[in-house]
Amino acid sequence: MPGFPTLECHVSLIVQKFGGSSVSDAEGIRRVAKRIVETRKAGNDVVVAVSAMGDTTDELLDLAHEVTPIPAPRELDMLLTAGERISMALLAMAIKSMGHDARSFTGSQAGMITDAQHGSARIVDVTPVRLREALDEGAIVIVAGFQGFNRDTKDITTLGRGGSDTTAVALAAALDADICEIYTDVDGVFTSDPRVVPLARKIDRITSEEMLELAANGAKVLYIRAVEYARRHNVTLHVRSSFNNNEGTIVYNPDAPIRLGGSAAEREENAVEDPMIAGVAADLSEAKITVVGVPDIPGKAAQIFKIVAKTNANVDMIVQNVSSAATGRTDISFTVPMNDGHRVMQALEAEKDDAGFQSLQYDDQIGKLALVGAGMRTNSGVSAKLFGSLSDAGINIEMISTSEIRISVVTRADSVTDALRVVHTAFGLDAEDEAIVHAGTGR
Amino acid sequence: MPGFPTLECHVSLIVQKFGGSSVSDAEGIRRVAKRIVETRKAGNDVVVAVSAMGDTTDELLDLAHEVTPIPAPRELDMLLTAGERISMALLAMAIKSMGHDARSFTGSQAGMITDAQHGSARIVDVTPVRLREALDEGAIVIVAGFQGFNRDTKDITTLGRGGSDTTAVALAAALDADICEIYTDVDGVFTSDPRVVPLARKIDRITSEEMLELAANGAKVLYIRAVEYARRHNVTLHVRSSFNNNEGTIVYNPDAPIRLGGSAAEREENAVEDPMIAGVAADLSEAKITVVGVPDIPGKAAQIFKIVAKTNANVDMIVQNVSSAATGRTDISFTVPMNDGHRVMQALEAEKDDAGFQSLQYDDQIGKLALVGAGMRTNSGVSAKLFGSLSDAGINIEMISTSEIRISVVTRADSVTDALRVVHTAFGLDAEDEAIVHAGTGR
Repeated sequence: MPGFPTLECHVSLIVQKFGGSSVSDAEGIRRVAKRIVETRKAGNDVVVAVSAMGDTTDELLDLAHEVTPIPAPRELDMLLTAGERISMALLAMAIKSMGHDARSFTGSQAGMITDAQHGSARIVDVTPVRLREALDEGAIVIVAGFQGFNRDTKDITTLGRGGSDTTAVALAAALDADICEIYTDVDGVFTSDPRVVPLARKIDRITSEEMLELAANGAKVLYIRAVEYARRHNVTLHVRSSFNNNEGTIVYNPDAPIRLGGSAAEREENAVEDPMIAGVAADLSEAKITVVGVPDIPGKAAQIFKIVAKTNANVDMIVQNVSSAATGRTDISFTVPMNDGHRVMQALEAEKDDAGFQSLQYDDQIGKLALVGAGMRTNSGVSAKLFGSLSDAGINIEMISTSEIRISVVTRADSVTDALRVVHTAFGLDAEDEAIVHAGTGR
Repeated sequence: MPGFPTLECHVSLIVQKFGGSSVSDAEGIRRVAKRIVETRKAGNDVVVAVSAMGDTTDELLDLAHEVTPIPAPRELDMLLTAGERISMALLAMAIKSMGHDARSFTGSQAGMITDAQHGSARIVDVTPVRLREALDEGAIVIVAGFQGFNRDTKDITTLGRGGSDTTAVALAAALDADICEIYTDVDGVFTSDPRVVPLARKIDRITSEEMLELAANGAKVLYIRAVEYARRHNVTLHVRSSFNNNEGTIVYNPDAPIRLGGSAAEREENAVEDPMIAGVAADLSEAKITVVGVPDIPGKAAQIFKIVAKTNANVDMIVQNVSSAATGRTDISFTVPMNDGHRVMQALEAEKDDAGFQSLQYDDQIGKLALVGAGMRTNSGVSAKLFGSLSDAGINIEMISTSEIRISVVTRADSVTDALRVVHTAFGLDAEDEAIVHAGTGR
């Protein structure tokens, strides 16, 4: 009916991201190409962000370190970006061999403009002019993940770990895509790590806020930075397996206008059905530093965290003990990534006299457990149930920190697996069957 | 003395090209970096063109063919250019680790503008703006060999086999370099292939015209295209080993103003001392096609070569036999690269009736020997001596073709090695000692 455009006329633009384990060899590249072609055949425009094949990035890093212990950052970025150049060209030629037009673009060709921070550049603008042209001409667009380009220096940059996720999300935002599919070697986001909690359940829908907390607390399926970007730009993510056609996990911003399908009533119902608890994550990569005998006078805690801040370490949980009236001193504990631990200890030791504390303790045998769910905002019983279940299992809690949608506790490292299972069960997250964990080299 | 610039003030600009065998691993990269730094320390500005490491290009080609038998040319170029990206970044970081500033540039960053012919693009312009900036800032410049960029399509291109030699020469021409050093795994250009003729002698100086004939007739040390470019743009080449500091071979254009040293009288003397014969090369890569029983009427030969031309095969030597008065027919023989042989045979066979010949013969057991030297222009005894020496050795000549500075003959393939040695000796090219052949994977 002319003049009455119907829903069927709408061509969706889908951004798909494939990680290194999905394209680790020629066979993987052909499998991914087939998948992309299927999406195209279903009537969608397709833009793909692809990582380097398998372990390519690590191999290039090794090569650089054979040449020099401290590679120049500009040249290291130039080197590493060869990885996606290889995978994207192979992927484009695989698609072309299947009879569909495809064109590969480097980060700079795709208009991924970043700052000049080599190795961990931040996206400052996305100008996908050439991608739009290619899409208009009916081509499938393949973009190198992980890489960008600085306008001032005219140099190639990389986005750092998880950069390909960020590339995909940034492209989805800039091109106003309907959805950004993140293909991985697991079926989606789980209520907990299925390798540790066999009864972990795939999550169908999760808010980007909850996803952010899970990612920040050890869930490895998505990188924090990509989730942040998606939340800020209202990009809906679909995390799913590249090894099957199952529905994965939708990560959405509940405050944003929903793009795909569903009436307002349906969306409301969905929101109501969202479970109170999204999942529980564990993280063994942090260490606890305790500053013993800090004078309990104003400004001392601030002074200590100023010293820590100078090391650029990422401080996570902070606990200040109740001051002892007898000594007028208190202890301050905080957690940092183990990688930063040594540097922080050195920095504090160097200013011990000035800061006036008595000694330092370092403990890397800790585990962090985080319970995440937007539903706990309005449910005061959550923390009681969490502490109760851990107590019943004889697991000691060393530190506690909370946000509106998260409660984190620190336990001994060797208790964290037990804690994960106990809490998973206590909050009714267990599935009826064990999750099938796919083989894969991770991301 | 102010106001009186002396020769010592002149900073030379040296372009250096290193092939894949010179940078096949981290150790090779560090060795090449050291060599570049030495050139810099001697007070020169240095621009380097570098090939992909070792067998990288072949490995990437294999990977492409695993993905699809006929890779899309645009994507194949995108893929292959990853090779030099790796070697140039590693080389730049190696130099930086030695305390000298170095910056790597891709073909497009270096301003290597080409046509859009993927896989064998021709350079149409060189705009090395960024290279000049880097040189002005005191940096050593590393450029990816083999690759370019098309302005219209904005796509990455490659220059085809031997492209890195061409990159080096084109940079030398565009930057007005004093000399272009081509580093390889042999000591220079030899009077013949030292692996076949043990008494082959390194040539100290050779004209670009002679070098062109040697390269076109099987000498592998330099690619024809790079020599052509050098001759046209008056770039003086120095072909030398990357494994020692010996002087190699100077390839110069005698008609061009000489850039480096020497008075007019010295140059004249040098020219006089140039030997009559530069060298003798052999080529086993061609096949001979004979068109039997061609009607000896005007236009028939032209018709046959029109058919051949349509296949884009590179016809080399052509011999038309004396026509037989009895039959009114003649035979036409010509040589083409073996790779093109099948295609040419098919094309001729398809038009056999129209062209009116009787049959086709195909012979890939031939060898071609070419004697090259500008001195033979003025010396009529050269061909007599060549044919005499082959005849004395019992070697049969099947075809002959000549230019002003070259005589080529075709023999049986299994005679060509003997022929090479016999002719080498007959023209007084033998060295007193056997040449040392370096191990190496070639270029």
